[in-house]
Amino acid sequence: MATSQSADAEISAGVDRLARAAVNVGLNIAHGQQVIVTAPLEAVPLVRRITEHAYKAGASLVTTMYSDDEATLARYANAADDTFDVAATWLAEGMANGFRSGAARLAITGGNPGLLSGQEPDRIARASRAASVANRPALEIITSFAVNWNIVAAATPAWAALVFPGEPEGEAVLKLWRAIFAASRVNGADPVADWAAHNAQLHRRAAALNDRRFSALRFTGPGTDLTVGLADGHLWAGGANAAKNGVVCNPNIPTEEAFTTPHRMRVDGYVRSTKPLSYQGSLIEDIEVTFEAGRIVSARASKGESVLSRVLDTDEGARRLGEVALVPHSSPISQSGLLFQNTLFDENASSHIALGQAYTECLVDGHGQSPEQLAERGANSSLIHIDWMIGSGEIDVDGLDDAGGAAPLMRHGEWVAAA
Amino acid sequence: MATSQSADAEISAGVDRLARAAVNVGLNIAHGQQVIVTAPLEAVPLVRRITEHAYKAGASLVTTMYSDDEATLARYANAADDTFDVAATWLAEGMANGFRSGAARLAITGGNPGLLSGQEPDRIARASRAASVANRPALEIITSFAVNWNIVAAATPAWAALVFPGEPEGEAVLKLWRAIFAASRVNGADPVADWAAHNAQLHRRAAALNDRRFSALRFTGPGTDLTVGLADGHLWAGGANAAKNGVVCNPNIPTEEAFTTPHRMRVDGYVRSTKPLSYQGSLIEDIEVTFEAGRIVSARASKGESVLSRVLDTDEGARRLGEVALVPHSSPISQSGLLFQNTLFDENASSHIALGQAYTECLVDGHGQSPEQLAERGANSSLIHIDWMIGSGEIDVDGLDDAGGAAPLMRHGEWVAAA
Ligand SMILES: [Zn+2]
Ligand SMILES: [Zn+2]
Ligand SMILES: [Zn+2]
Ligand SMILES: [Zn+2]
Repeated sequence: MATSQSADAEISAGVDRLARAAVNVGLNIAHGQQVIVTAPLEAVPLVRRITEHAYKAGASLVTTMYSDDEATLARYANAADDTFDVAATWLAEGMANGFRSGAARLAITGGNPGLLSGQEPDRIARASRAASVANRPALEIITSFAVNWNIVAAATPAWAALVFPGEPEGEAVLKLWRAIFAASRVNGADPVADWAAHNAQLHRRAAALNDRRFSALRFTGPGTDLTVGLADGHLWAGGANAAKNGVVCNPNIPTEEAFTTPHRMRVDGYVRSTKPLSYQGSLIEDIEVTFEAGRIVSARASKGESVLSRVLDTDEGARRLGEVALVPHSSPISQSGLLFQNTLFDENASSHIALGQAYTECLVDGHGQSPEQLAERGANSSLIHIDWMIGSGEIDVDGLDDAGGAAPLMRHGEWVAAA
Repeated sequence: MATSQSADAEISAGVDRLARAAVNVGLNIAHGQQVIVTAPLEAVPLVRRITEHAYKAGASLVTTMYSDDEATLARYANAADDTFDVAATWLAEGMANGFRSGAARLAITGGNPGLLSGQEPDRIARASRAASVANRPALEIITSFAVNWNIVAAATPAWAALVFPGEPEGEAVLKLWRAIFAASRVNGADPVADWAAHNAQLHRRAAALNDRRFSALRFTGPGTDLTVGLADGHLWAGGANAAKNGVVCNPNIPTEEAFTTPHRMRVDGYVRSTKPLSYQGSLIEDIEVTFEAGRIVSARASKGESVLSRVLDTDEGARRLGEVALVPHSSPISQSGLLFQNTLFDENASSHIALGQAYTECLVDGHGQSPEQLAERGANSSLIHIDWMIGSGEIDVDGLDDAGGAAPLMRHGEWVAAA
C-alpha cells in the first residue's frame, strides 16, 4: 500500500514536470494561442496538467481529442467490411483549419503499439490509407513548421506491458513512466535549463554537419551497405526549431537526433533494420530492403511483411526516403536498453531513415519553394512519414563528398571525435 | 462488496440497453453512416457500448469528442482574462462539415450542471457567446433535421451529487443511473418495441393538437398568466421524426413532450419558472419574466439573475420564444419527483417554453423557406435555444382560436380528456 502510494506520488510529480516541459519547452506557447491536443484516453492525468500549464502560459483555449484503443478494436470486431475506407475527413480538415488560424499542436503518444496485430492487413491498410489522405493537409502544415508543435509520451498499461513483459501492471507502468521521464530529460531541478543546454549541443552538432557539405552518407554494418545521397542544399537540423509563426519549439520530447533531407533519387544499396518498427498498431520486424536510384526495389520482413508491403504501396513516395538521421549508440535512450516499440523513443536510440514525406525545414530556403522545385532538389513527397531504425553499435557511417572522398562520421555507432 | 459488484453489473447491463436504444431508436443509423459523438469523459463505458452497437448497426466510423469538466475549470482558474472570447471554431466547423457530408450526431449529456457556479458571469457569458457563434452552423443543421441525431444521458459523480445530495458517491451514481434507465424507457424486455408504442402515443397527441389549429395557448397558475401565440402554419411534433436524410430518428431520449413553434411577435403576459434552469454550468432559479409583443421586457431570478440577463442579451432573438411544449404533470419523469438539473430530463417533466432558435420542422413546409419567410411566419432565430420549465400540477392551459374562443387543454397540469 505504502509502495503504491509513493509510486502514485512519484508518477504524479513526474507527470507535472513533463507537462511543464511539453508546454514551455515543447510548444513554447504564445499568448492567446489555441492548443489542439491529441491523446489516448489513458493520458487524462497528463492532459490535465498540460491544460493547466498551457493556460498559465497564455493559451486561450486547449481542446483535446482523445483516442480510445477499445473503440478502434470495436470497429475491427463489428463494422461491415465495406466501411473501412472511411476516415474522419471532417475532423482532420477541422484540425488543419485550426493550425491555419494559428493553433499549436500537441500530440501525446502512448497507445498500444501492437493494437492491430491480430487484424486483417487489408483492412488496416485501407483504414490507414484513408486516414493518411484525410490527414495530409494537417501533416503538411506540421512538416513545414507553419505552427509550433510537440510530441510527448504518456505511459499506458498496454504499452507498458509490451516494454516490460511479465511485470505486474502497476510495476510496468511505473517503470515506463520512469523511462519516459529520464528520456524526456525532466528529472533535474530545472528541466527548462536542462533542455536549453541539450538544445545547444544538438545545434552545435547540426552546425558542424552543415559546415561539411557532404553529398551523401554511407552506412555499413551487418546486412547493411547503404549510400544515402543528400538533397541539394540540404540543411542538418536538431533540437529546438523556429516555426514559421516565429515561435521556437521543440517538436519532439525526447530528441537526440541530427537529421536532414535525403535525395529521393540518390539512395542505393541494402539495409537491415536494427529495431522492430511499430506502425499503426502492427509490429514489423527484421526489415531488409534494397534501394536502386532512390527507390525500394525489394523488401522483406520476418514479421509484418504484408503490412510493410502495403505501406510501400501507399503511393510513389512511400518507396523513397524523406529523412536520414544520426543518433549515437550511447544516447541515453539507447543506453536504457529498452525497446519502446514507439518511434518517438526508438528513433532517438538509433540512427534512422524515414520512408515518405520530407521536412522542408531541412532545405536551404525550402519554405518559399513550390512542390516541383522541392522535388527537383530531391525532397520526397508522400502521404506517409515512417521512421525506421538502422543504427546500432555495429554500424559505421561515412560522409561522402562530391569528389568521392569519404570522411569517418561514426564508428561502432559513436561519433568520431572530428565529426 | 457483494452489493457494489451487483450494482456494477446492474449499471453495466443498463448501459448496454441504453446504448442499443441510442443507436437503434435514437439514431437509427444508416449503413455506412459516420457517427459524431460528444460526451463527458466520465461516460467512457456508455460511449464504448454505443460505439460497438453503432458498428453492428452499419456505422462506418464512430468518432467521439470528449469534454472534461476539469479542463474547463482549469481555464477559468488559469487563463488570462483577455482570452475568454475564443472558441474552437475550427472544431465546430469541422463537425458541421461532418454533418453536411452525412454524419449522424449523438450527444451524451451528463456533465456537472453546477460546474461554473463559482465563476465570473462576464467570463461565462463571453466564453458561451463565442461557443454559440462557433456552433451556430452545426446547430442550424441539427435544428433543421438535416441529419438524424439523438441526445442521451450518462450518470456522472458530479451530476449525481446534485440530484442526490448527501448520498455516498457510489449510491448517488447508482440511483441516477436507475432514474436515467427508467426515464429512458430501457428497463423492459424489448426497449425498441416499447419506444415504438411510446412514439405512437406521442404522434397521436401531436396529430390531435394539429387538428385543432389553435392560434395561441394560454398558461395560467401561480405567478403565471401567459398567452403564447403560435406561428402561422405551425405544426405540433413529438417523438420520432424523419430527418431530411430520410432516417427516422428519436432526437431526445427520454422525450415526453408535444411541442411547436410560437409566434415570435405574439407572446404577452407574465410567467414564473417552476424548476431551476441549468445553463452552461450555472443554475438560474425562480425566473419571473414579462413579455410584451413577443419580447421579454423584464426579467428577474432569485439566483443566477446576472447569468440570465447576459443570456437575454446574447442577441435580439434571445428575448423571444422559439418553442412551446406541453408535458403532463403525470409524466414518468415528473412522477419520479427528482429535479435532474439537466434540461433533457427536466423539460420532459414539465410544460416549457424555450428562448431563442425555433425548429423549422414545426412549421408546415418550413424546410424550403428562407430565413425571412420563416421570420414572417413567426419563427424566431437566435444563437441560443434554452428550454425553460413553466409547467406544474398548478398550471392550466387553454387553446385559443382565432375568434377568441378558449378550449381547456390541461387542468392542474394534466390533459383534459377531450384534448
Ligand atoms: Zn527522425
Ligand atoms: Zn522522422
Ligand atoms: Zn422541448
Ligand atoms: Zn427545446
